[in-house]
Amino acid sequence: MTEFRGIIPPVLTPFDAAGRVDLASLDRLVDHLVDAGVDGLFALGSSGQVAYLTDAERDEVVARTVARAAGRVPVVVGTADLTAPRVIEQARRAEAAGASGVVVTAPLYALNDAAEVGRHFRMVADAVGVPVLAYDVPVRVHAKLGLDLLLELGRDGVIAGVKDSSGDDVGFRRLVAANVAAGRPLSVLSGHEVVLDGIFLLGADGGVPGLANVDPAGYVRLWRAAQAGDWVAARAEQDRLARLFEIAFVPKGRSGDAGGIGAFKAAVALLGVIDAPAMPAPLQGLTDAETAAIRTILVEVGLLP
Amino acid sequence: MTEFRGIIPPVLTPFDAAGRVDLASLDRLVDHLVDAGVDGLFALGSSGQVAYLTDAERDEVVARTVARAAGRVPVVVGTADLTAPRVIEQARRAEAAGASGVVVTAPLYALNDAAEVGRHFRMVADAVGVPVLAYDVPVRVHAKLGLDLLLELGRDGVIAGVKDSSGDDVGFRRLVAANVAAGRPLSVLSGHEVVLDGIFLLGADGGVPGLANVDPAGYVRLWRAAQAGDWVAARAEQDRLARLFEIAFVPKGRSGDAGGIGAFKAAVALLGVIDAPAMPAPLQGLTDAETAAIRTILVEVGLLP
Amino acid sequence: MTEFRGIIPPVLTPFDAAGRVDLASLDRLVDHLVDAGVDGLFALGSSGQVAYLTDAERDEVVARTVARAAGRVPVVVGTADLTAPRVIEQARRAEAAGASGVVVTAPLYALNDAAEVGRHFRMVADAVGVPVLAYDVPVRVHAKLGLDLLLELGRDGVIAGVKDSSGDDVGFRRLVAANVAAGRPLSVLSGHEVVLDGIFLLGADGGVPGLANVDPAGYVRLWRAAQAGDWVAARAEQDRLARLFEIAFVPKGRSGDAGGIGAFKAAVALLGVIDAPAMPAPLQGLTDAETAAIRTILVEVGLLP
Amino acid sequence: MTEFRGIIPPVLTPFDAAGRVDLASLDRLVDHLVDAGVDGLFALGSSGQVAYLTDAERDEVVARTVARAAGRVPVVVGTADLTAPRVIEQARRAEAAGASGVVVTAPLYALNDAAEVGRHFRMVADAVGVPVLAYDVPVRVHAKLGLDLLLELGRDGVIAGVKDSSGDDVGFRRLVAANVAAGRPLSVLSGHEVVLDGIFLLGADGGVPGLANVDPAGYVRLWRAAQAGDWVAARAEQDRLARLFEIAFVPKGRSGDAGGIGAFKAAVALLGVIDAPAMPAPLQGLTDAETAAIRTILVEVGLLP
Repeated sequence: MTEFRGIIPPVLTPFDAAGRVDLASLDRLVDHLVDAGVDGLFALGSSGQVAYLTDAERDEVVARTVARAAGRVPVVVGTADLTAPRVIEQARRAEAAGASGVVVTAPLYALNDAAEVGRHFRMVADAVGVPVLAYDVPVRVHAKLGLDLLLELGRDGVIAGVKDSSGDDVGFRRLVAANVAAGRPLSVLSGHEVVLDGIFLLGADGGVPGLANVDPAGYVRLWRAAQAGDWVAARAEQDRLARLFEIAFVPKGRSGDAGGIGAFKAAVALLGVIDAPAMPAPLQGLTDAETAAIRTILVEVGLLP
Repeated sequence: MTEFRGIIPPVLTPFDAAGRVDLASLDRLVDHLVDAGVDGLFALGSSGQVAYLTDAERDEVVARTVARAAGRVPVVVGTADLTAPRVIEQARRAEAAGASGVVVTAPLYALNDAAEVGRHFRMVADAVGVPVLAYDVPVRVHAKLGLDLLLELGRDGVIAGVKDSSGDDVGFRRLVAANVAAGRPLSVLSGHEVVLDGIFLLGADGGVPGLANVDPAGYVRLWRAAQAGDWVAARAEQDRLARLFEIAFVPKGRSGDAGGIGAFKAAVALLGVIDAPAMPAPLQGLTDAETAAIRTILVEVGLLP
Repeated sequence: MTEFRGIIPPVLTPFDAAGRVDLASLDRLVDHLVDAGVDGLFALGSSGQVAYLTDAERDEVVARTVARAAGRVPVVVGTADLTAPRVIEQARRAEAAGASGVVVTAPLYALNDAAEVGRHFRMVADAVGVPVLAYDVPVRVHAKLGLDLLLELGRDGVIAGVKDSSGDDVGFRRLVAANVAAGRPLSVLSGHEVVLDGIFLLGADGGVPGLANVDPAGYVRLWRAAQAGDWVAARAEQDRLARLFEIAFVPKGRSGDAGGIGAFKAAVALLGVIDAPAMPAPLQGLTDAETAAIRTILVEVGLLP
Repeated sequence: MTEFRGIIPPVLTPFDAAGRVDLASLDRLVDHLVDAGVDGLFALGSSGQVAYLTDAERDEVVARTVARAAGRVPVVVGTADLTAPRVIEQARRAEAAGASGVVVTAPLYALNDAAEVGRHFRMVADAVGVPVLAYDVPVRVHAKLGLDLLLELGRDGVIAGVKDSSGDDVGFRRLVAANVAAGRPLSVLSGHEVVLDGIFLLGADGGVPGLANVDPAGYVRLWRAAQAGDWVAARAEQDRLARLFEIAFVPKGRSGDAGGIGAFKAAVALLGVIDAPAMPAPLQGLTDAETAAIRTILVEVGLLP
């Protein structure tokens, strides 16, 4: 079984001005990440704007990402859909396209209790041959995956890991500790861009930061410093990345999807990695003034001259 | 354009013990509703467990419902999916299968502002040839459709109506009043089972109560009493239906999807309309004790001898 | 025991420009309400800005309200404070000042379960000699009083009634029905300004609308029409009052406390009942433009020439 | 001006079996904390059950804590009440009793916007002569203090620090970074028991952990290791304290106030520091089985033989 460990960026999905997925830009983004030394790729995550992609577009993105990664790193794939019967269809297509694992949230739209959520994950795991990672993102799913449920699913071999984007740092440390006590059935990963030094200090297995699209080398340095026990270096790198993360706060009065991911795309385009910061409708791109403010931050942290 | 007015039940989706959609039971349920005098059918709503159906199952349900309704009443169809690009695919398939309208929520999983939600509805309306009804169900979508947005979409001809399941009675009256002031561009419908007498008193255009699967004739009587201005009769019928609605509170400690819809299915099965109260996995059916308690209520309100 | 029934306005607390309670204006407001035929007064409610008053100011308001009411109608008094030991002190002072009942919310700041909330109400009821009314206002207290708890407290004689400002219309109808089935231990009152026709149709015992400060005669007419079974008249009056309630939406981008209560105060000042629409710090009064827009609505509904 | 830095435990308020504040136990608890080397005391915090204390009891606790601390460490005092006019009265009494600072939340019960919350803090700061610390505890106050507001209040000298119990780790790091960039006007303290190693790594000025009532020496060791840059030792101590924090999860199905604080009190009583783990009504103490499970954890982490 693939081990999920280290820096695994949720890959942005580039679009062209006509609203089509820009596969050439995606190729360059994959290289940008892999060449920087990341440990895996997460396609079709929230940063990949999975919610805005049709099934055909999802398939296209996965196939291209897997092809371009070319075995250099594993590619895990998001399966955002409403409930298990539909998620299974997403997961099987991802597996067929070469995914090394699938990333699954609790049901959407449905009103379920913890036992039902547990069976949801079991149904998906039973239906595919690759590992399942649970994705805990209450700001989108509007429910938190509980510690007891995650551990039970880990011990039973249903899930191989957790991507935590819950912002519940107390719960995260309890999860890491309980996972260690249970013999480490889970890879416990954090999606939070600016607290990974402390997260690695407490023993997490890796990070899935959207901001790593912009500065994958920085996150790789942070991870390697932490692995080496050089916490002063880890903190300094995290502080620099936290300054970089301020690009996400440049857009004011924007929705969550337009502001943060819009800023990531603008930055990656400014770096020349992707052709354009285009957003899928009904989202709109950033203004010139916002883009200029993002450029200023890129200069400040040394990513642009 | 079809006018959406009166009692339009969100039709349950029957399953068999093997977890397949039970089309023969669906036929009988459609007849049960249409024969009672309802004014339309809403397939693939929350009560229809749309979230748990694959696209193939959704198509099967719509085709069969339209065929069985056979033009006796219009059939509107839910399109639950994440964002406009995906909802459009659902809506086009529904239109192709004969839907008289499509029912659309705000985006799921996405983090959008009101302007983006407005463009979401415009994208869907532009893509189909049948009317779009907005479905306001914050308990599932985790966002409320605002009064100003709904009116704007109504005046611009983007949406033809609103199904309100928000539980915001103050907002609902303001919507009805503002709609009247704007020349009634919208059909304003309520999804709340137990307050329709007051809702009709204040001028709503109809109701979409899940409980109408169990007692369509009762809701038709309530609507007709209200239309006739006989508020004493309307209230008496609503009180009887509110007693019947207590079936939804029989299951204790159940999830929202297992308890309420489970109770409706149990009741309709007890009435002999559908073969079985089977639930799609990962939901589980009610216990024998719960079913017995539901039977008692059906007897109390005169639906069973 | 006093019966709580009919229209019981939550009385605004007038201030002067120096930030002191304006007792002369309070006298005129009390007369404005009592002369219009209201059935009781609720001092120190949310509309009375109880949260912004020191204990000394609260005592002053209660004493003056009771004195001015002079037995013409009962005066119930809010006791907003954190937990039972502190609420008891508030309640005893209110009782000593002549309150006919005290209005009590669930604890604030505390993190309690239903059993603890139940004991909270029992502690207060044991400590005072006047009836206790439960005040269910989740938007401020951030917890909902459950149906089972309210009924239990009613049957045990702990509380004499409920002021519901929860916006949960389904729960409200269930409460009214369950209260009737239990022999009517509770007076069930609604705080919602614009849905009282339907609320009275379904059998509520009265209303506690903040807007009644502006148009007490309108609410008295609404109540009396409902009592007479003239639902057409009740609805027409409610529609007029709903138009009047639009004053609460005139202030844009204001906090809940500044906008709604600010609008009520502006209107009552425009009517000449109180001297000034002054707000306690840190709240600020409305702008001239907002006040002018409120005046326009007062003219439209016939309250100003 | 007193600098707020290091470990500042929120002191539990001991009660006797009759429900009175147990001042002799409070003396011993103060010594337990001060003797362990803590840097300050926070009386009348959430862990001190401030919400359940009358004004007379609050005065008693503050006077005794200040007397017993006897200048060895500063004592800051909580002022939980609804709005500024009432908080000012609490703050003035605390100052008169010898508080070195007052701890102030955003308003309770009120519905305020950020500008009003800002003026709320300014009103309190203007009314007292000791520093004001902002207390950000959304789980109780139901509003988050924003980064911009806190910085503005810091730069203007309105507040001297922040106790963050928001669980928003991303926001916390941004606050620390922005505070450094602004010249450190604020002492930025965290209330979270189990993530202080990472919190100190990112540069926080101290911690206010309720669990420090149980093991003040452990938290002092953690702080000093962090100050010395020994992150391996800091993490090891935090891991031990995280195991100890599992006492808070021993009580199952309890309210937030009964479970967590009940566990802290039970532990401190088991250690012999206070006479009894009594809780103020309507809260109830833990069961013998729960207490036994807590004892087991105390043994595991080396606090009991």
